[in-house]
Amino acid sequence: MNLATQIRGGLIVSCQAPADSPLAAPEIIAAMAKAAVLRGAVAVRINTPAHIQAVRQAVNVPIIGLWKQTLPAYPVYITPRFADAVAVAAAGADIIALDATARSRPEPLQDLIQRIHNELGKPVMADIDSLENAAAAVAAGADWVGTTLFGYTETTAHTPPPSWSLLSQLVEHLSVPILSEGGIASPTMAAKALGLGAWAVVVGTDITGIDLKVQQYVAALKANTDLS
Amino acid sequence: MNLATQIRGGLIVSCQAPADSPLAAPEIIAAMAKAAVLRGAVAVRINTPAHIQAVRQAVNVPIIGLWKQTLPAYPVYITPRFADAVAVAAAGADIIALDATARSRPEPLQDLIQRIHNELGKPVMADIDSLENAAAAVAAGADWVGTTLFGYTETTAHTPPPSWSLLSQLVEHLSVPILSEGGIASPTMAAKALGLGAWAVVVGTDITGIDLKVQQYVAALKANTDLS
Repeated sequence: MNLATQIRGGLIVSCQAPADSPLAAPEIIAAMAKAAVLRGAVAVRINTPAHIQAVRQAVNVPIIGLWKQTLPAYPVYITPRFADAVAVAAAGADIIALDATARSRPEPLQDLIQRIHNELGKPVMADIDSLENAAAAVAAGADWVGTTLFGYTETTAHTPPPSWSLLSQLVEHLSVPILSEGGIASPTMAAKALGLGAWAVVVGTDITGIDLKVQQYVAALKANTDLS
Repeated sequence: MNLATQIRGGLIVSCQAPADSPLAAPEIIAAMAKAAVLRGAVAVRINTPAHIQAVRQAVNVPIIGLWKQTLPAYPVYITPRFADAVAVAAAGADIIALDATARSRPEPLQDLIQRIHNELGKPVMADIDSLENAAAAVAAGADWVGTTLFGYTETTAHTPPPSWSLLSQLVEHLSVPILSEGGIASPTMAAKALGLGAWAVVVGTDITGIDLKVQQYVAALKANTDLS
């Protein structure tokens, strides 16, 4: 069964933790991934070769792999260079996710996608923030598109994700699987994304974002205490 | 600073995982607790001596300890016997949480609370499901009351937690700290509980319940796929 068929209609759990979190240890990320698969996730999305390698040994489902890299000269940070993709593939990822927004980047998008196809033999998931970027990514060879970066780039930061209109446009205009990712914060929202034609739904913070959720709760309680 | 002052207005994170989960390993529960404290939790709530012991070595904040025990003859399952409380205290818990509903139990509530005070020197958190049970628990010596079991007992199962009216009644009628626990599923709800007079707020599933949340998402997506 090919990868796209394996994930169709399913939940993909992004298992990540901030680098300074006690939960960022590879064996803990692997345990999160294992628990997600045990409870029905069809795939997982994992950042950094070390985590991908640990997860690869723990689960058999497809791994969407990426490597977030902060490059001083470029805003693009999800698997921005071919060398990053090489490490992600070597660690065991089945699909390489990369930033496919129109922002300045160290290597041309088309070259990057074609090298990943030709030299690594892996499909590419394009993380985008607009229909234009998505269409350009597909034209450059991207196999899947994710709404991942909507709400996280300069041009979209004013609107919190998810964007249902973006999802609908992508489904309507593009012929590749569209993954709804970013801002999905309840099972109801996930079902809505599927109903709008998403091929599959990626959820991170609401399931595995323990650090961030604690911060959100603490901030809300503090705000309340300051008022009383 | 006494325990009650330490937790006032704060977030208490319940770090638990189903026994069959890859996340149920003591070192992972300890990492969850450590992450929660790193991000601002004032205390943690931990089940089983093995997890309490691991968490005790990882954090300095107060631990509300309990031991869920399924007893064939009794519906009460949160730290139902003095022997359970001994193990919880020995593992390093600062407060012993126990089921203080009016259901049949292996040892009288008043005896259990007084033995925990006199022989273990620990305060007791009474997990209840009604104002009457809470009042009886306080009369029997309970130091704190938690709304923990509302919605989880035969008499309250028809109403999903949290019960804001129960919380308000407890705050109004009782003079001990009232902890809002059970069904708190967003920072907004947590702030509301504090606004209604909760001494502190306990959150479990929405922050650390990875297994259960994946199941909820998978069920919602499956229901959607079955429809389309």
